[in-house]
Amino acid sequence: MGGDRGSEMAIQGALAAVRDTEGLEVILIGPRTILEQQLSEHAAAAGSSDLLGRIFVHHATEVITMDDSPVDAVRKKKEATIMVGFDLVKKGQADAVVSAGNSGATMAAAVRKLGRLPGISRPGIASFFPTLKKPVMLMDIGANVDCRPQHLYQFAVMASSCSRLLLNFDQPRIGLLSIGEETGKGNALVKETYELLKQSPLNFIGNVEGRDVYKGDVDVIVCDGFVGNISLKISEGLAEAAMQMLKREIMKTWRAKLGYLLIREAFKGFKKQVDYAEYGGAPLLGIDGTGIICHGSSNAIAIRNAIEVAANMVRNRVNEAIVQALGEYAA
Amino acid sequence: MGGDRGSEMAIQGALAAVRDTEGLEVILIGPRTILEQQLSEHAAAAGSSDLLGRIFVHHATEVITMDDSPVDAVRKKKEATIMVGFDLVKKGQADAVVSAGNSGATMAAAVRKLGRLPGISRPGIASFFPTLKKPVMLMDIGANVDCRPQHLYQFAVMASSCSRLLLNFDQPRIGLLSIGEETGKGNALVKETYELLKQSPLNFIGNVEGRDVYKGDVDVIVCDGFVGNISLKISEGLAEAAMQMLKREIMKTWRAKLGYLLIREAFKGFKKQVDYAEYGGAPLLGIDGTGIICHGSSNAIAIRNAIEVAANMVRNRVNEAIVQALGEYAA
Repeated sequence: MGGDRGSEMAIQGALAAVRDTEGLEVILIGPRTILEQQLSEHAAAAGSSDLLGRIFVHHATEVITMDDSPVDAVRKKKEATIMVGFDLVKKGQADAVVSAGNSGATMAAAVRKLGRLPGISRPGIASFFPTLKKPVMLMDIGANVDCRPQHLYQFAVMASSCSRLLLNFDQPRIGLLSIGEETGKGNALVKETYELLKQSPLNFIGNVEGRDVYKGDVDVIVCDGFVGNISLKISEGLAEAAMQMLKREIMKTWRAKLGYLLIREAFKGFKKQVDYAEYGGAPLLGIDGTGIICHGSSNAIAIRNAIEVAANMVRNRVNEAIVQALGEYAA
Repeated sequence: MGGDRGSEMAIQGALAAVRDTEGLEVILIGPRTILEQQLSEHAAAAGSSDLLGRIFVHHATEVITMDDSPVDAVRKKKEATIMVGFDLVKKGQADAVVSAGNSGATMAAAVRKLGRLPGISRPGIASFFPTLKKPVMLMDIGANVDCRPQHLYQFAVMASSCSRLLLNFDQPRIGLLSIGEETGKGNALVKETYELLKQSPLNFIGNVEGRDVYKGDVDVIVCDGFVGNISLKISEGLAEAAMQMLKREIMKTWRAKLGYLLIREAFKGFKKQVDYAEYGGAPLLGIDGTGIICHGSSNAIAIRNAIEVAANMVRNRVNEAIVQALGEYAA
């Protein structure tokens, strides 16, 4: 209920997810009457009324908005949809939560309701970035703005386990985001983290620079949440500005406008490659349960993909792998 | 001599700069015989032999390479071209230095030869980013990776003075790069810097997010050199990867290839808008003199523009403005 585009996208995404994934069931959390009506309308429109047996509605009316302070919201709005969602996970009535609402509140609700995995000091948010090759997982993208080396080390362990199981890597290549490839380049946090990662059994390939993020020669990139959030947002901002600049140039001549008509499909293919909606949201890692944060303006495809990533994380027991890796590496 | 593309680009850039700017003189620093021969060849080829009276060669053979450690290099290679350059500024025989060589060494050489401006704790590197409107100046892009609030405050003062005089702003709008627009968002460094900027006479508009960098609604963005360097490099990397992805899509069909032929001029116009070469390099701010660092792979246009920015900084007395602003704001 807290996303920028209301409940419609969640409902369409849920319908697409149960249609595409056998055995999957989705619980929609929000005002029962509204959701049930929208659900039956969308199912009828999509000719998918047969799927309704696998979509349930759990009633909740309180909503945390994008403007709410996360900490205050989870304390005051105890019956908010996102709180109810993680409560269902806690009670074993759901396996995972997917939300396109307030990210900070989603993280805060997850930690409050489910707690952290044993041994994890700071849960964080991972996100897939498109690259010239396979997508790369970057962690943390904003949950922890002031980090110690131990936190970044744990991000590496968590993202490595998650990436390995979700994308079927043998040994994900881990890079540390810095301002030079050589050992000893970076700020104090990065230099200390470098040593921790080098001594670990992780497949650590060293520092990676900003310009390497989109090349696809590394599977996991570790950074603090301040740097990660700026990396994500500056990329989104640049992509959007670049499309606008290009459009302005194209609109200058009839020749270019005609060319655009011919090239439009290629643009669509390109947009699909860089569209966050294709990447299934941002997994919360380090909580004792499964949660996915989606972009506030997520469309139905983004929601469907996020539900599938959540299901994959549960099926592949990502959390067990994280706890096991942490224990093994410590020993 | 230390750029990726050797001395040819510097020579062509120098020829273009003296052709386009009345009264400007350029001193090329490097091995005399080679430079003089290349210079007369390029001048003849460009039909610009009349300009040779305003281009001089200063002999120096030692070169700091891209792989040299900046600190070691400036200590050991005392006769390197970049050291000689700042020495000429110190002796009053040149007004500014432009270099496409090792950035760290250029900064180290500048500080070693010229020292800092009175009151400046940490000189830094500023850089122009293209936006949907006017270019924005971001500082620091890599000289200072671990900063205190006072350093970021001084970056704001320096970049504000420089941007005001170079781009003819009345009161440049200063933003602080963070992960949320609201007061109190960000890491510890940003939160403390926010208070300093708010209390200053600068035209501080508050936090700006990564996604706002390319919108052009702010004139100066302040951040530490670690975050700034990653912002710059991730942008370059994304732009390059996006062009490659788009090219791959276009090559898939004949229709799109034909469309590309029609749209090519629009692409060129777009590339020119985002090309760092158009933005005249990265001014070193806070040193007691004028220096510009260019991209290692700078072409002649980039060198010409950097020379013009250097000349403008000297003519507009940017350093005097910085010292004056620092003094006034302190009082």
